[in-house]
Amino acid sequence: MAAELVKNFVGRLVPTEVNGKKEVPYLGNGKYRPEGHRYGPPIVCGEDYPADGNKVVPSLKEALQAAGLRDGMVVSTHHHLRNGDLVANEIFRIASEMGIKDLVWFPSASFPCHAEIIKYMEDGTVHHIEGSMNGPLGKYCSEGNMRGTAILRSHGGRYQAIEDGEVIIDIAVIAAPTSDPFGNCNGVNGPSACGGLGFALPDSLYAHKSIVVTDNLVPFPCIPMQLLGNYIDYVVVVDKIGVPEEIVSGTLQITKSPDRLLLAELTAHFCDAAGLIYDGFCFQAGAGGTSLAISNFFHQLLKKRGWKARWAIGGSTEYSVKMLAEGQLEYLLDGQTFDLSAIKSMRDNINHPDISVFHIYDYHSKGFNSTMIDVMVLGATEVDVNFNGNVVSHSDGYLLHGIGGWQNCLFSKCTILPIPLFRNRMPVILDEVTTLVGPGSMVDVIVTERGIAINPLRKDLIEKTKNSGLPFKTILQLQAEAEAICGKPAKPELDEDIVAVIKWVDGTLIDSVRKVKTK
Amino acid sequence: MAAELVKNFVGRLVPTEVNGKKEVPYLGNGKYRPEGHRYGPPIVCGEDYPADGNKVVPSLKEALQAAGLRDGMVVSTHHHLRNGDLVANEIFRIASEMGIKDLVWFPSASFPCHAEIIKYMEDGTVHHIEGSMNGPLGKYCSEGNMRGTAILRSHGGRYQAIEDGEVIIDIAVIAAPTSDPFGNCNGVNGPSACGGLGFALPDSLYAHKSIVVTDNLVPFPCIPMQLLGNYIDYVVVVDKIGVPEEIVSGTLQITKSPDRLLLAELTAHFCDAAGLIYDGFCFQAGAGGTSLAISNFFHQLLKKRGWKARWAIGGSTEYSVKMLAEGQLEYLLDGQTFDLSAIKSMRDNINHPDISVFHIYDYHSKGFNSTMIDVMVLGATEVDVNFNGNVVSHSDGYLLHGIGGWQNCLFSKCTILPIPLFRNRMPVILDEVTTLVGPGSMVDVIVTERGIAINPLRKDLIEKTKNSGLPFKTILQLQAEAEAICGKPAKPELDEDIVAVIKWVDGTLIDSVRKVKTK
Repeated sequence: MAAELVKNFVGRLVPTEVNGKKEVPYLGNGKYRPEGHRYGPPIVCGEDYPADGNKVVPSLKEALQAAGLRDGMVVSTHHHLRNGDLVANEIFRIASEMGIKDLVWFPSASFPCHAEIIKYMEDGTVHHIEGSMNGPLGKYCSEGNMRGTAILRSHGGRYQAIEDGEVIIDIAVIAAPTSDPFGNCNGVNGPSACGGLGFALPDSLYAHKSIVVTDNLVPFPCIPMQLLGNYIDYVVVVDKIGVPEEIVSGTLQITKSPDRLLLAELTAHFCDAAGLIYDGFCFQAGAGGTSLAISNFFHQLLKKRGWKARWAIGGSTEYSVKMLAEGQLEYLLDGQTFDLSAIKSMRDNINHPDISVFHIYDYHSKGFNSTMIDVMVLGATEVDVNFNGNVVSHSDGYLLHGIGGWQNCLFSKCTILPIPLFRNRMPVILDEVTTLVGPGSMVDVIVTERGIAINPLRKDLIEKTKNSGLPFKTILQLQAEAEAICGKPAKPELDEDIVAVIKWVDGTLIDSVRKVKTK
Repeated sequence: MAAELVKNFVGRLVPTEVNGKKEVPYLGNGKYRPEGHRYGPPIVCGEDYPADGNKVVPSLKEALQAAGLRDGMVVSTHHHLRNGDLVANEIFRIASEMGIKDLVWFPSASFPCHAEIIKYMEDGTVHHIEGSMNGPLGKYCSEGNMRGTAILRSHGGRYQAIEDGEVIIDIAVIAAPTSDPFGNCNGVNGPSACGGLGFALPDSLYAHKSIVVTDNLVPFPCIPMQLLGNYIDYVVVVDKIGVPEEIVSGTLQITKSPDRLLLAELTAHFCDAAGLIYDGFCFQAGAGGTSLAISNFFHQLLKKRGWKARWAIGGSTEYSVKMLAEGQLEYLLDGQTFDLSAIKSMRDNINHPDISVFHIYDYHSKGFNSTMIDVMVLGATEVDVNFNGNVVSHSDGYLLHGIGGWQNCLFSKCTILPIPLFRNRMPVILDEVTTLVGPGSMVDVIVTERGIAINPLRKDLIEKTKNSGLPFKTILQLQAEAEAICGKPAKPELDEDIVAVIKWVDGTLIDSVRKVKTK
């Protein structure tokens, strides 16, 4: 690829054109204001659908044929089945058999279980992927094997792209743990239960054709109707849409690592010292071991003081469910449901509703909830001395992770990254992040096992915590400490070729990802 | 008005242009296929909304000003507060004070409580109404006083019109019994509780600006979120949005009239004889006294036989709630909630979800649920010997009622109109209906106190019930019986001027309403 490059607002070189479409460089928050209207999918007519409401067709192949699958189409999937998804591979296996070429796969995220799709990129069925890549597909892309350029978007950015007509989905294939023949479906019931189905909401609303694939067909009406059959064209019943033990994430234990527990404790103490925790506060914490430990610290603190959190956004797990059940949390708004107790809670507890990423994260919405959150705890693969963050690539340049809601979450009132100072003797604080996924101006605090660095922009936090006794350091001090132990890290060896671009939440380009030099 | 008229598929003369916009005559079902795309409202940016999620402005006037209210705009409201609505009049009182002219009011329905808006048509604030008119506004329109032509749409047709961009709502004002400062809102809680808010769903999704008006502000998050704050621009808190005793309808008693009970009994027996009632059937019955009696017959029959109805569509009332609670009904899908026990049930029972008219009725959807319903019981002001039905005007030509979901419901598997043979010595079966709201080909059975007429097109129903012992007659026989008692009814005295048009579910014109000759 030899596209023209321009330097964007955060100093990164990004192409002016990707996969043949013009792109806008990141201009700073609130600076890019697209004119025009949201996308409207084609007008449909109820007469073209079965009067008895039965949209079941015999197989996914027949559904794809009926939906008019052809070369060059955009096919979307969601990732609520996580690494247990059995549906996405099947789509492209069928497409490959049919001799279809040059599809764009537009998943809300991909996982190691989707490595099979490399085969369909090799045989020409899939042209490129627009979506977060966890693992093998990221490696494949990093090494320059994908014909097109990958486009990574945050969860909110994916909604924005669909809504604004930046990505037009020809066919959405929606794996649904329970569906009725009309296509009303949910994720809370059935053998492949996964909780909410919010990531598939924009796909169902905006795709030209939508196919529900289920292994648990129930008579109309499927209640709750998380997605509405009024947006579904075909329903396919298969033996199994997912592998339950891979749908329910494996990382749902509070960390037992002393270092990580220390990170969690420092984070919780910082939040308390900074006055971020109060009766009625709200927070978001992920499902990783450190995040769970932090939430647990919050839980115990609230209990001790007789306080409640008004709401939290999940990634829900048994820990947040327990907090809800025990009364230290009033509402658990759930964008992604990580374990069985969370699925059960969503099914039974009105105060644990499934919500779509749209509600929480969509920048092109009439307000979005990230800005309202008091405490946001996030991870990062790298940060740099300007507090810029990276969540998609490793320091060797390999693109191995998705953005998730990370960029969207940076809009919170206080964003904290608890990170180890080094991983495998590789410092995590660098002069410059390999990939700039979020601007440093939006990262407020970095907590490491050897000290806490507050972003100098947050004078208020510095003032509030100055007498807390917490181990504050500058980010340069932290960097120096790591380098004293591990040495100055080597720069990754990269080619000029751009293999992927990173979108900001408004659809502009915040960074490019270069091909890794392979021997 | 002297627009060009054309004869449509059912032989009615309709204008080719209404209020300056081209219109299409009704061409028969499935014949009018609009090309193109659904409407997309302008792209918005979260940066323009308060980061703390607080969209409260001090008054409705300030909200309307902020929303840019100006001459000629389309302003929409919903009718879940029914005859107890205090918000709609207030909008136009404010607009009138501001000197705004020529607004189009686009309510999902209007009630006698909205008679004050006549004043704002007189002073030029409101140009015309597009929406069902119950009572005084209909009379005002019928007598030719409205400057523009009224446009009446079914509930599903209103959704279709918004979705297809036929009506572009500039400002939606959504009265909400409970809301949070972000604009997430519901109708199940608060002093003005009304149940679901489904009629306002398309308004919130498609309006350029949306204002929630509430008398019960709760801290974020308002759960359940029936409508999403992500689509709301401003929130206004007032003392009172509605008069509770007028929100809960007054017609919620099973009829005690022997004639109407007979209609109900005949209808239920007919359904049973025709095999329409079975274990797992589904039905829709309204909230009128006769309909409630019919539902009650169904309930008792199911109980006796140990059967269940799989689902019903409400207009929910204590009767349908009882059926749900006692186990003779599995799911109550609720588009409109008519009494307090129904509101409570919706709040507490997951099997009683609020749903939007879109799910049930929208013809421009990927299937709609009316076509799946086994038994549909509807009312009518008139029918004619060709089974055509009228629900909007009386035989004196006055347009006094809305269409509601009536047209949408005609798509059911069996549509039954239980009607008295005459009202106030005026026969209900005519040579020709005053206003043709639904084509006779879609009306299957007419039940009167003096006999049942099956539409000759429904040979299957005739065959199934021939040995039932029920009192079958032809529609001409029924007409003759009524005329023998009441005499041949006089035709209404009408001018040539068209004061209103009736849309079919696909946006085409099925009939025109003429000005009534006044002395």
